[in-house]
Amino acid sequence: MITFALPDSIQKLISELTKFPGIGEKTALRMILFGLRGDLVFFKNLGEAFISVYENIRICKRCFNIAEDELCEICKDPKREEGILCVVEDVGDLISIERTGQFSGRYHVLGGLVSPMENRRFEDLRINELKNSVLLYKITEIILALNPSMEAEATALYIKDFFKDLNIRITKIAHGIPMGSDIEYLDEVTMAVAIKERRELE
Amino acid sequence: MITFALPDSIQKLISELTKFPGIGEKTALRMILFGLRGDLVFFKNLGEAFISVYENIRICKRCFNIAEDELCEICKDPKREEGILCVVEDVGDLISIERTGQFSGRYHVLGGLVSPMENRRFEDLRINELKNSVLLYKITEIILALNPSMEAEATALYIKDFFKDLNIRITKIAHGIPMGSDIEYLDEVTMAVAIKERRELE
Repeated sequence: MITFALPDSIQKLISELTKFPGIGEKTALRMILFGLRGDLVFFKNLGEAFISVYENIRICKRCFNIAEDELCEICKDPKREEGILCVVEDVGDLISIERTGQFSGRYHVLGGLVSPMENRRFEDLRINELKNSVLLYKITEIILALNPSMEAEATALYIKDFFKDLNIRITKIAHGIPMGSDIEYLDEVTMAVAIKERRELE
Repeated sequence: MITFALPDSIQKLISELTKFPGIGEKTALRMILFGLRGDLVFFKNLGEAFISVYENIRICKRCFNIAEDELCEICKDPKREEGILCVVEDVGDLISIERTGQFSGRYHVLGGLVSPMENRRFEDLRINELKNSVLLYKITEIILALNPSMEAEATALYIKDFFKDLNIRITKIAHGIPMGSDIEYLDEVTMAVAIKERRELE
């Protein structure tokens, strides 16, 4: 799209930035022009921040969250509750749950869901690692915190079956009508789930 | 907003990314999580691309466009027409004009407009540099390609006055109804300009 002979370093940066979803050439150029209006040290700092992530980030060997040491900040924290493990698909979901401050146990990042479409089988998930954690840390409850989908349903069933011989409680997070939403505009599937999973008033 | 103890390198990268206008913490985190899903070398490449811009980009000493050498790609190009100079406020405007492929002369990046609100006077612009270029390169026409505003009007008048003793043509790009627009929904100012600056059918 950009025909003008931009300097090589700018063109290279545009081509890297446009690898992000939702960032096209125009947006990338706008970001760069913003930087050029100020102190060029901005580019240096950003560059060093990206490289520092490359150099320092690894995967927590216990829960597979992002970490800078062998264990992530959560697994290092002695105040977290042992015995209860929240299974999430990826690190983004883990961060969302952490933000609520409502969960004090530990996590296991599954790294995907069973998906025949994407040729991902149950064995391709971090399932043996999950079993090792369950045995090693004497887990009594696994909470499945998966985004609702056919793949999540299938994965949940596999997990239930996989742990059927262990005396372990397997729960899933509640689905239903989100706070602040308007029943009139809610999608039918959420509404159907909300009716099916209704509870007694306490 | 993010209360979860993210690793230091991730937190630092978020704080750098959110310096871009329109990028908040959530967007920055989403960008980083996108990168974490793939090969971490992505972060290294991006980091090096930012640092390369920091190390290589300078300002063209003739037109003040971005460059990697003393002169920018345009000023280095012997095929560009001499004698006609397009004055723009900043590099972004220059790139937009270059994209059209309709201008074959050279540029002068003014670096701002006269603005009493922002305490920017005519002398604060690259106006002596403009005069030097006009004399050195025997410019016969200056095209003012400024975004329409009160500040642009004032700057244009100052420039006209500044060059009044030189035998030089000063023009400005045409304002009016943009192609593909709908008269019914056009703002009044554009419409007023379009009527005022009407031309004979040829």
